[in-house]
Amino acid sequence: MPARAGHAMPRDARGRTLPRPYLLFLGDITVEAYAKTAAGLRDWAREACVGEYRLPGCKVSTGLPELDPAQARARGARSLVIGVATPGGAIPAHWLPALLGAMEAGLDLVGGMHSRLADVEELRVAAQRLGRGLHDVRVPPAGIPVASGRRRTGRRLLTVGTDCAVGKKYTALALARAFRGRGIDADFRASGQTGILISGTGMPMDAVAADFCAGAAELLSPDADAAHWDVIEGQGSLLHPAYAGVSLALLHGSQPDVFVVCHQPGRGHMLGFPGYAVPAIEEIIELTRALGRRTNPGIRCAGVSLNTRGMDAEAARRACEAVAARLGLPAADPMRGGPAFEALVEACLA
Amino acid sequence: MPARAGHAMPRDARGRTLPRPYLLFLGDITVEAYAKTAAGLRDWAREACVGEYRLPGCKVSTGLPELDPAQARARGARSLVIGVATPGGAIPAHWLPALLGAMEAGLDLVGGMHSRLADVEELRVAAQRLGRGLHDVRVPPAGIPVASGRRRTGRRLLTVGTDCAVGKKYTALALARAFRGRGIDADFRASGQTGILISGTGMPMDAVAADFCAGAAELLSPDADAAHWDVIEGQGSLLHPAYAGVSLALLHGSQPDVFVVCHQPGRGHMLGFPGYAVPAIEEIIELTRALGRRTNPGIRCAGVSLNTRGMDAEAARRACEAVAARLGLPAADPMRGGPAFEALVEACLA
Repeated sequence: MPARAGHAMPRDARGRTLPRPYLLFLGDITVEAYAKTAAGLRDWAREACVGEYRLPGCKVSTGLPELDPAQARARGARSLVIGVATPGGAIPAHWLPALLGAMEAGLDLVGGMHSRLADVEELRVAAQRLGRGLHDVRVPPAGIPVASGRRRTGRRLLTVGTDCAVGKKYTALALARAFRGRGIDADFRASGQTGILISGTGMPMDAVAADFCAGAAELLSPDADAAHWDVIEGQGSLLHPAYAGVSLALLHGSQPDVFVVCHQPGRGHMLGFPGYAVPAIEEIIELTRALGRRTNPGIRCAGVSLNTRGMDAEAARRACEAVAARLGLPAADPMRGGPAFEALVEACLA
Repeated sequence: MPARAGHAMPRDARGRTLPRPYLLFLGDITVEAYAKTAAGLRDWAREACVGEYRLPGCKVSTGLPELDPAQARARGARSLVIGVATPGGAIPAHWLPALLGAMEAGLDLVGGMHSRLADVEELRVAAQRLGRGLHDVRVPPAGIPVASGRRRTGRRLLTVGTDCAVGKKYTALALARAFRGRGIDADFRASGQTGILISGTGMPMDAVAADFCAGAAELLSPDADAAHWDVIEGQGSLLHPAYAGVSLALLHGSQPDVFVVCHQPGRGHMLGFPGYAVPAIEEIIELTRALGRRTNPGIRCAGVSLNTRGMDAEAARRACEAVAARLGLPAADPMRGGPAFEALVEACLA
């Protein structure tokens, strides 16, 4: 039986266990959207996080205790997780003293950015001198095959999106938890670095060479018992001008029976792409069906997950009801739960 | 002005010039479809090929003079090109004596497979000892950015396909030549290893990390004069169970004004995927429009390129006429030329 989210020890790309618990490093970022990894760990792996570590000028917080590496080490922390993404994905030079200090204090480093910790000479030299580990979770495993297109056993759900950062990971985590709460054998399948840190396993899809990307998605949700559900974290959007290729490879390789569209009401333009309007949910449903039926002719849309963060409860309820009425499908914010979310869960399992 | 096919010196991924002319190595393959690279070089860069080199048991030939490395060197050859792809993309161990012998005879090695020449220790050691170069053209350049989605100046045509190996590269090469024959400023843009060897420049799209794949396509056809055409070699198919992600990233990043669908009549199932029927041309037109208008709202289908290889002239003519009548679009085999191809060229430029 496949490992379950939270049941397996987290491992880096070389199969080494990621040392927990974590101290979450926020650097000196000032934009909350860049702290997705730290926020995801706080929300879904709280027990694995002793606190956060911020540099002067940082305007973002997870709300966890603020600790320096020595304090965190004293509370049991075993690694410092770079919990933020910078535009471009590089490690700024002015973070290096803090990262080196964390290693001096006894912590391994864990990174999920495109630029690898092990490629920064100062970090590599210090890790060797101090006997610390550098864990890059965004490095795909070796030997990923070209996709075969072969249908696999078991059931699969994929979250898809109208944009990046609309709730695909949270929706998949919430659905997997709800499925298990109903006694259903279900695994969350992480397709990005934060999900991998949360669940302890997964595939960094966006770092796989394009030819092998659908093959990587096939590895991510292997054959399983007929009644087993893999709930797969989606990536990007089929209409994203930069990342649609990743979304399509993940769709084809996941061969989902069911998909849920994730959307943030009121977002006018795609994050970081002011020239591109967020597509309509209907357009994503139609494209996902048209492309997804290639590897699973039975694919169907179970409903919509709305990210209503920042709305009051009444506005959120009305937003879900409006989308549900327009599409004739359940629509809910999984982070708010309630009857609407129950209806979405039932529609997924129907 | 961008470099033109045939005008620039071929370079490997590190910017080193590829030493021409080539000796084409066919190994001991027995299936003609695996010799696409050798055939492409024979057909489109004949002046750069002194001959072919085959191992015992090889059942495939380009028709070029059969030479061993020493004979080829005496006729001026400067490198041995691995002109075949093996399933899986690895270099078989029993080819090593021939490859080492070629280096002993004075030739550099040029490879376009996913597995790199420089990763084979015997080859690396011998190259160093003998002062020969190992050129891997399927290694993407460093520093590819995430796609911006920004509209670029100049005009662009992309060949798309109902499957792999249906003629996307030959069609793009033939259209670029026909455009130039009409006095139009046009470049062939190679997106795969064979095209790169032919034209001397390009982007090995399928080896780019998925997150940067559309960004790589943006680099491939940069801003140009308003009247200039980039004729871009397509990859895979939007309905290919393994490679559709590459096709979509190339479509979005190429932002083509015009696309031509490439198809082989009579091919029932996708090459190497017996469970997958070749999609209808109409389906590819519809999906290419639906997805391509995201980065170029003016995208249009100019017509169809049929690969009528193995058909007699009359059957080929009838096949083109039938498709043209069914779709209401020009349909031609670029390798046969004639009025049908002229009509296709006119429709592209209309």
